[in-house]
Amino acid sequence: MSTAIAFTPSLPSAKVIHVDTRGAIILSEESPETRDSRGIYLPNHIEPVSHIAVDIGGSLAKVVYFTRSPDPPPSPSVAATRGSSTTSEISTPRSVSPSELSVPEDPSVRSPSPLSGGGRVSGALTPLVLDQQQQQQDTHTDSDSLSSTLHDNLLRHTSFSRPRNFPGGSLNFERFETDNIDACVAFIQELISRSAEVNGVSIEEMRRSVKIMATGGGAHKFYELFREELQVEVRREDEMECLIEGLKFFTMIPDEVYYFSDELISSVSHHQPVGTTLPTNASTVDEPSTSTPTTTEPQSQLQVPPPPQLERPSPDPPKYGVTFESNPTPQLPCLLVNIGSGVSIIRVDEDGSFERVSGTSLGGGTLWGLLSLLTPATTFDEMLALSEAGDNSHVDMLVGDIYGQDYSKLGLKSTMIASTFGKVFKKGGTQRTFRPEDISKSLLYAMSNNIGQIAYMNAEKYGLERIYFGGCFIRGHAATIATLSYAIRFWSKGTKRALFLRHEGFLGSIGAWIRNIDSEESESRD
Amino acid sequence: MSTAIAFTPSLPSAKVIHVDTRGAIILSEESPETRDSRGIYLPNHIEPVSHIAVDIGGSLAKVVYFTRSPDPPPSPSVAATRGSSTTSEISTPRSVSPSELSVPEDPSVRSPSPLSGGGRVSGALTPLVLDQQQQQQDTHTDSDSLSSTLHDNLLRHTSFSRPRNFPGGSLNFERFETDNIDACVAFIQELISRSAEVNGVSIEEMRRSVKIMATGGGAHKFYELFREELQVEVRREDEMECLIEGLKFFTMIPDEVYYFSDELISSVSHHQPVGTTLPTNASTVDEPSTSTPTTTEPQSQLQVPPPPQLERPSPDPPKYGVTFESNPTPQLPCLLVNIGSGVSIIRVDEDGSFERVSGTSLGGGTLWGLLSLLTPATTFDEMLALSEAGDNSHVDMLVGDIYGQDYSKLGLKSTMIASTFGKVFKKGGTQRTFRPEDISKSLLYAMSNNIGQIAYMNAEKYGLERIYFGGCFIRGHAATIATLSYAIRFWSKGTKRALFLRHEGFLGSIGAWIRNIDSEESESRD
Repeated sequence: MSTAIAFTPSLPSAKVIHVDTRGAIILSEESPETRDSRGIYLPNHIEPVSHIAVDIGGSLAKVVYFTRSPDPPPSPSVAATRGSSTTSEISTPRSVSPSELSVPEDPSVRSPSPLSGGGRVSGALTPLVLDQQQQQQDTHTDSDSLSSTLHDNLLRHTSFSRPRNFPGGSLNFERFETDNIDACVAFIQELISRSAEVNGVSIEEMRRSVKIMATGGGAHKFYELFREELQVEVRREDEMECLIEGLKFFTMIPDEVYYFSDELISSVSHHQPVGTTLPTNASTVDEPSTSTPTTTEPQSQLQVPPPPQLERPSPDPPKYGVTFESNPTPQLPCLLVNIGSGVSIIRVDEDGSFERVSGTSLGGGTLWGLLSLLTPATTFDEMLALSEAGDNSHVDMLVGDIYGQDYSKLGLKSTMIASTFGKVFKKGGTQRTFRPEDISKSLLYAMSNNIGQIAYMNAEKYGLERIYFGGCFIRGHAATIATLSYAIRFWSKGTKRALFLRHEGFLGSIGAWIRNIDSEESESRD
Repeated sequence: MSTAIAFTPSLPSAKVIHVDTRGAIILSEESPETRDSRGIYLPNHIEPVSHIAVDIGGSLAKVVYFTRSPDPPPSPSVAATRGSSTTSEISTPRSVSPSELSVPEDPSVRSPSPLSGGGRVSGALTPLVLDQQQQQQDTHTDSDSLSSTLHDNLLRHTSFSRPRNFPGGSLNFERFETDNIDACVAFIQELISRSAEVNGVSIEEMRRSVKIMATGGGAHKFYELFREELQVEVRREDEMECLIEGLKFFTMIPDEVYYFSDELISSVSHHQPVGTTLPTNASTVDEPSTSTPTTTEPQSQLQVPPPPQLERPSPDPPKYGVTFESNPTPQLPCLLVNIGSGVSIIRVDEDGSFERVSGTSLGGGTLWGLLSLLTPATTFDEMLALSEAGDNSHVDMLVGDIYGQDYSKLGLKSTMIASTFGKVFKKGGTQRTFRPEDISKSLLYAMSNNIGQIAYMNAEKYGLERIYFGGCFIRGHAATIATLSYAIRFWSKGTKRALFLRHEGFLGSIGAWIRNIDSEESESRD
């Protein structure tokens, strides 16, 4: 049964910003496979951070850590999208075509080998002990003087030293297969020892300074493993609380949130929705602001009357322009649908209190499990690539297959899927063969659409207009996003909106990371 | 989008009973495989009937026809259940254990060969021409005299002749694979020629007298085929209208409707629900009646406070006693969830008007398609039998697999399924093997539970307490019924009830059959 868990929202709020997200820039990905784990540069963040957050789900373990740097990484690691870094800039939602949503090309879930000389361990943690030393020094020395003991580095830069409270640094994101949790442990071990080396402190000192903020089910299952292997403090945080905390954080990062606008790019429909002529940038927000809870842009766009008739959902829904939210504002209340191995559906109230109201066991693990058995794909991303080349009508039973025509009286077109996999039955004990591409396309669509349908019904039940989809199932895959988005658009008759996040899989881990900032602060100020 | 189609309810209503269902008796099955297609004896029905109804869905074609007889078939074809045949009898819901719900043992969908000497063609149609002749004779002869031209036969009995308006006869039910529609056509052809022979009329005369009432998608797809092969009139009826008509009919047949009562037989739970002590027969309806819309028994039982805490749905939910509705009363408003190859969800208002409000493509065709590829089962029933011997925890990822324990804060037990098929992923490109039994159990549960969840949300949205599940997916299979029923019980906290029908797959065909009774009547009386 779902349980109401109320907690006070702490981040981001209008009054106390623990993580200063002003001017945050999403760094461009190094390769398509790292699309969802590109770094976020926070030019204004000052608080010292020396902990590592890890969210261990049923299939993937997601890691977040922070490395200091006064400057964003140089080109080619420039900002991937236009960040709203200056407050004087007139900011409007940015619209791009869906093809700009990169589909991962290299399908393997990366398991970086931290021992293979660098890899993605691109920065070092700042041990708190150095901050404490620095704090003591600051009382004796001029704040402008250099502190030779502080080595916050991005390895791409030469080392430098700055006063304790210089701002700037990057959030780093990594993921590993839970089934291969040892790779995750080894990565963190390498990060810790590297940080000790870079900062010139002993490994014992570094370990005392570092803390693991663990969430997700694996935080419990692997608690002892992390403690014993890493010899650092491990703190466990509630999974749902971290998800919500993470959602609140990410919705404050410019260009993190995106959605399909009402601008129709192409339609498989012969009904041309009225909304076609609506310019995407119709709604202009004058002042970018990280803290003023003005009317959110998606909400104001929803005032536009929806198209009079929407085609039923299908694997090839009408295509709409993608809009990035460059001017983020608080997005509560909302529904959060987190699609990992399974699916959790969480209602978030305006004050940040929340309840897990629903869920389904038909999630990413189901799709990947089925397609593991039914296709030669060896990874989830390979399966996504297969689905791109598929035609579901070879395996799905369409209305036309049953009726020989449309079911006009109910407005069900002949191309509508009546029964997923309805053509794949044995006849007289013999089984025909089907293309892996068609199987992948059918099941990816069916799973996504089912989640969209259940999400819609919950949003309807609780009167929520904004539905955020998170979790590693999404993987920035255009077909998945379009299906989820269109399901919400269709069932809600355009009154509700599906919203997505570039770092969709990292809500829990960033939430756990943030929770420690809070607790550190309350500890240090008590 | 769903379209509202309003039509005036014609059957059964309190004032005009076209099909007299008083005293209706469900005949016992001849074998487990015919569980859902056992005949219904109508001792009081008088209207002449010479048409055949067929509902052709994506996977199955369902046939209904009527054969006259003044007496119910003799033992061993006696009534399967106690019918409420006398109005003076005090009637209470009958409670039986779930094991009394027979699970089909012979797994093949029967495709009777009508040419193999008898088979299930157990009776003959009465050609209308004979009724018309009889009608003319009746004006000249005493109504008590025997008419030698009228031969309504059950072949098990010797021939007899009776006046036109003697009451009694049986509804007969047959199903065929749509993929093998020729077998269905051949069966009807045999029925027509046999009826001509038995009644001593020419085949041409018989064909002029017979009509096919066709519904379902195949009514359109196979319209020409039926007309050309059978050389009889074929009339097409709307699928949804027939479903609702059929539901209204079946809910008037004693012992047709059944549901799980609040009487707990055994529970996997350590929480013992309060409702355990509630006697099933607590709510006694004094007067059986087919026409007085009194408070329905299921409704009155719903007044009982629900158990305080229900375990989450699982493939092994707590077991409740099965109650047959021996004293049927009109059951509107309600939600009808028809699970065929796909799923239609229809809201039915108190006045009989209805709207297809939702549906899902994840239905019987999906399950059977997946299991065709994933198991050696050659039929749907064989797959159901496999699932009985399965353990889903070998393929599903449970909360305990992720957490190593319960997720106590949210009340999610370690045995709860977090991700269906979540353990079935390839690792390093190699695929482990899984037992067909475990695969069947997992997917049957997941599909059933998903339908139950979507059904519940629609019932909630429209404020409906009664949810009827129809369609050939159910097949009287105890695990399917228990899953659907428990999903409704759990999600609605005991405030809504799942109801089932013995002839679950024949709603559309019986609806089409009844619609012709109406039109015949209006034609003959105009």
